Amino acid sequence: MKTGVVLIGTGNLATHLAHRMMERGVSLVQIFGRDPKKAEHLSATLHTPWTSRWEAIRQDAGIYLLCVSDNAIPIVAASLKDQLRGNALVAHTSGATSVEVLAPFFTRRGVFYPLQTFTSGREVPFDSIPVCIDASSSEDLEILRQVGHRISQIVTEVGDEGRLTLHLGAVIANNFTNHLYAKAFQLLEEKKLAPSLLYPLIEETGLKIQEMPPLASQTGPAIRGDQRTIDRHLECLSGHPDIREIYDLLTRSIQSEPR
Amino acid sequence: MKTGVVLIGTGNLATHLAHRMMERGVSLVQIFGRDPKKAEHLSATLHTPWTSRWEAIRQDAGIYLLCVSDNAIPIVAASLKDQLRGNALVAHTSGATSVEVLAPFFTRRGVFYPLQTFTSGREVPFDSIPVCIDASSSEDLEILRQVGHRISQIVTEVGDEGRLTLHLGAVIANNFTNHLYAKAFQLLEEKKLAPSLLYPLIEETGLKIQEMPPLASQTGPAIRGDQRTIDRHLECLSGHPDIREIYDLLTRSIQSEPR
Repeated sequence: MKTGVVLIGTGNLATHLAHRMMERGVSLVQIFGRDPKKAEHLSATLHTPWTSRWEAIRQDAGIYLLCVSDNAIPIVAASLKDQLRGNALVAHTSGATSVEVLAPFFTRRGVFYPLQTFTSGREVPFDSIPVCIDASSSEDLEILRQVGHRISQIVTEVGDEGRLTLHLGAVIANNFTNHLYAKAFQLLEEKKLAPSLLYPLIEETGLKIQEMPPLASQTGPAIRGDQRTIDRHLECLSGHPDIREIYDLLTRSIQSEPR
Repeated sequence: MKTGVVLIGTGNLATHLAHRMMERGVSLVQIFGRDPKKAEHLSATLHTPWTSRWEAIRQDAGIYLLCVSDNAIPIVAASLKDQLRGNALVAHTSGATSVEVLAPFFTRRGVFYPLQTFTSGREVPFDSIPVCIDASSSEDLEILRQVGHRISQIVTEVGDEGRLTLHLGAVIANNFTNHLYAKAFQLLEEKKLAPSLLYPLIEETGLKIQEMPPLASQTGPAIRGDQRTIDRHLECLSGHPDIREIYDLLTRSIQSEPR
């Protein structure tokens, strides 16, 4: 069985995956990037061969891993298909994209989706990142499971629908909360208060849910029905109709939870 | 100068404060609780005298700390005033309440507001919790500052307006994000997916902001303008009009941020 990995892409996810794979002894045989500068830069730190030309793509790898944006997957898959002579396993890394987007191009297709937010220059503890896998055959699922277990302790098979739900959950729990942090920071900064005053609270909020379900442990004026405090907050927000709208909707949503 | 503290209240905040004060050698001379069972229970673990009768309140303490709900502050302050013969410093611990709520009752008044969410049975690292203080005189501010520094490394003077903004920021960054976590968990559970799959992402989201401002480091389909993924998510939410409304508002809010 061929096991070498060709990694296609040079963005945040590609960079983090490539480093983790090298660190854990996964055979990364080539990096492909449309932008030669980025491909060379990523390869240099990893001492891995690279190319930016489709015709130079390695033919002998076991897995071709597409670490590109969702919209680029079909385009990249089409280019890859034109070059690949063998019958290799091709997997994308997207949470919101069906495995079937690869069906027009490849018979052996899969998904390898690490559920985490990757930021340039920030290391994350990879061991605990859930790697969500899917494949069009049980043999290929097993191949992806093996690679997954090299880089993380948590590898789980999730189909299209479940993966999209996970991706939606990630958007809510990461993108939306991050936006709320941005709004809270903005309010503090306008009053010359350091946003760092909120760090311990935010850290505790993210850790607490690992021990207590957030629905059961909700606190604050909304759940208490403390209308006087809510009114004071809304008055504070009189100059911020956008934040006021968010405050109003989330307060009502908390209050409408069945208890 | 009298320095002993009488702590009034037996809830989460009172419990956490009392334990921390004892641990750090602050002289906690008495605990008052309207419910004798709760007062006795809290005192038992601390070996501190307690009472549930206003007429038995200690007269010789330096600070009377009101750890009661916002609505109860004036009632408790009135009862305390009726008993106190001396001219002691009385401080409340509320983020959303003016120091002047104590003005009808006491000439020496202050605020001692620890900016954190306290949960029964969960220890939090107290050292980094910002203690926000305010007082009607610089001498009393100094007294509160000294007590604050016994229990935390971060003690900061904040007036009514700033404290209300901090409290509002805390509601946004804690109550609202916790509600989003509850909604994300609900979606996962409905598809038989373990909410724990989101723990690493949530932890990373809360830590990342300490190094990168959330406004600048926003990711996801909203900021990318990835309408296809947004549409897929909205379709997922067709059976959840409440979450759909939140998704829609926060997506628009992210997209309207100046970049």
